[in-house]
Amino acid sequence: TVELELEAIEKGGYEHFMLKEIFEQPRSVADCLRGRVNADNGHLVLGGLREYTDKLAKAKRIVIVACGTSWHAGLVAEYLFEELARINVEVEYASEFRYRNPIIKEGDFVIAISQSGETADTLAAIELAKSKGATIIGVCNVVGSSIPRATHAGAYTHAGPEIGVASTKAFTAQVIVLTQMAIAVARKKGTLHEDTFRRLLFELERIPHKIETVLQSDSKIKEIAEKFKDARNFIYLGRGYNFPVALEGALKLKEISYIHAEGYPAAEMKHGPIALIDAEMPVVFIATKDSSYDKVVSNIQEVKARKGQVIAIVTEGDKLIPTMADYVVEIPAMHEALIPLVSVIPLQLLSYHIAVMRGCNVDQPRNLAKSVTVE
Amino acid sequence: TVELELEAIEKGGYEHFMLKEIFEQPRSVADCLRGRVNADNGHLVLGGLREYTDKLAKAKRIVIVACGTSWHAGLVAEYLFEELARINVEVEYASEFRYRNPIIKEGDFVIAISQSGETADTLAAIELAKSKGATIIGVCNVVGSSIPRATHAGAYTHAGPEIGVASTKAFTAQVIVLTQMAIAVARKKGTLHEDTFRRLLFELERIPHKIETVLQSDSKIKEIAEKFKDARNFIYLGRGYNFPVALEGALKLKEISYIHAEGYPAAEMKHGPIALIDAEMPVVFIATKDSSYDKVVSNIQEVKARKGQVIAIVTEGDKLIPTMADYVVEIPAMHEALIPLVSVIPLQLLSYHIAVMRGCNVDQPRNLAKSVTVE
Repeated sequence: TVELELEAIEKGGYEHFMLKEIFEQPRSVADCLRGRVNADNGHLVLGGLREYTDKLAKAKRIVIVACGTSWHAGLVAEYLFEELARINVEVEYASEFRYRNPIIKEGDFVIAISQSGETADTLAAIELAKSKGATIIGVCNVVGSSIPRATHAGAYTHAGPEIGVASTKAFTAQVIVLTQMAIAVARKKGTLHEDTFRRLLFELERIPHKIETVLQSDSKIKEIAEKFKDARNFIYLGRGYNFPVALEGALKLKEISYIHAEGYPAAEMKHGPIALIDAEMPVVFIATKDSSYDKVVSNIQEVKARKGQVIAIVTEGDKLIPTMADYVVEIPAMHEALIPLVSVIPLQLLSYHIAVMRGCNVDQPRNLAKSVTVE
Repeated sequence: TVELELEAIEKGGYEHFMLKEIFEQPRSVADCLRGRVNADNGHLVLGGLREYTDKLAKAKRIVIVACGTSWHAGLVAEYLFEELARINVEVEYASEFRYRNPIIKEGDFVIAISQSGETADTLAAIELAKSKGATIIGVCNVVGSSIPRATHAGAYTHAGPEIGVASTKAFTAQVIVLTQMAIAVARKKGTLHEDTFRRLLFELERIPHKIETVLQSDSKIKEIAEKFKDARNFIYLGRGYNFPVALEGALKLKEISYIHAEGYPAAEMKHGPIALIDAEMPVVFIATKDSSYDKVVSNIQEVKARKGQVIAIVTEGDKLIPTMADYVVEIPAMHEALIPLVSVIPLQLLSYHIAVMRGCNVDQPRNLAKSVTVE
């Protein structure tokens, strides 16, 4: 039929929208940087936030409200704003926030994150915070949707339409917008050294290329997927900037393969989840060379001592973890604060391939809607 | 041998320490209230915190650091302090907090929660916060342990020695101490109406009896355990005060039965986890008559529409949920803020019976240590 042919064209040669969208990320991230960042002349401006960057720099507190994948992007933003701009950030599930009579005062800033811009709980959380005098900043993908219309200011993620129900390019676009926002605010506030600022801009411009590099590991990741496609459970572990990535990796697998996957901050493993580890439990570690590297290496050893299967996302050239892990996927080195933008890519591909091998409908997983417009 | 006989005596007729400790909770909670609460004359004083109650009442912000089960008690405390005392609370994994250069200022309060008082990450988090000028309050069980010695003030949980590795009575003792603390601070701050204050004290005194009532459902819970002992996965859902209870219920099952159980705020289900729901997925709802009741009822309907098996913890006399859920356990009615103290009890028993039926060593689950004194 014409419709099917049209869909095939829209998929641009990819078997599924999700795969197309994963592979689009070098471009969607570049689109998100275009006109906003120029490392050569130290330029960093988010158009829709020009005057609010000053105000955010004076904020005592930022509350981020979101759901699902957007909530994970919010967790990354917490680490970014706290580390770079030294502003306290709380990340709230929109659904919990709105029903608990939250403490919001005039002068508080709320950042609402939503791909569709229509998420019912997030929209209601915004209205509540607004009624209490907060300034609301939106980070949405769909132009002209309800959330951007309800906010004081915001930045679009420019990822283009996302058809796959499991969010991929919208997540990286959210994270890159939030990263730019945190850097801009930190710069304004004076909490960022000029050389770190320049280095971050320089590295931001190279993220699309680094994502491109990781996408070349697709066939290797497919081989790993083949080994684990029949697993019934997965655990994902990371620390620091990679903790939200662990949550997001687990959510992707849940959503499209229906395998029960759970993310945890790696150090919490010893407080319970390690009891689950045996030879049948695959554990995905996001174990890049960053400030928690040594600690994560210990966690890998603990899992191997209990015969768990380890898949590790490591930094290019890592010589140690490949001697311990069962499977390794390399990503290029970069500034710690930018790692989530790249370390999430192999996890998206892993979920995708596992789901396809299990015969799941990856673009329209059971029970899920693309935008959750009901409470 | 003499040792075995000694152990039998210590177990006081129970098959395992964990079961003994679950059944001790009416007494351990009463011990935790004794001398601190008297509803008749409106008395509420935590000895070790007398002068700090005033200071906490002026706090702009409280940061709670903890790991594992104690972290769940901290989440309950977040709801308590925010609702009753209108103080912003952030709950942090101690392991994440200590490595991220946290923003702590003089005047900030840190509450550290640990059963053993020796948790390495929590201890390190305290030292870091102290070096930045924060006032540290400890909530520990083991008298004279390292954390109480490192804090400025604190309150012991008086739960007595806990032998079972999976924490039960220590959790309820932590929650009741934190509840008393939040009420005392709210009272001092003037954010609590006199009648609500009196009502909370009155109801606090009745918690041991309510726990006793729930313990009488043990054989019913055992029957439910029989039905689900071979499950490979579980999801636990709750909202508001029952969200941390969902996390804690899931952790108990993970720790001792090695079943992969995961807790979620119920409204997040639609943003991913609902894809997991099919006829083989048991879902435990903590669905008491509180301000989120109607929303949780909708979530139960969504799970039933996807053929999930529903076990619901409901308020005595609930007529609606029993018509939808597959299995129901009742708990007595009480003030919303106190529900976690009682709603967690059936979840402890459920985990216990499932683990015993699976032949697991409930008192010393594999891979786990009672106190995590290494990072």
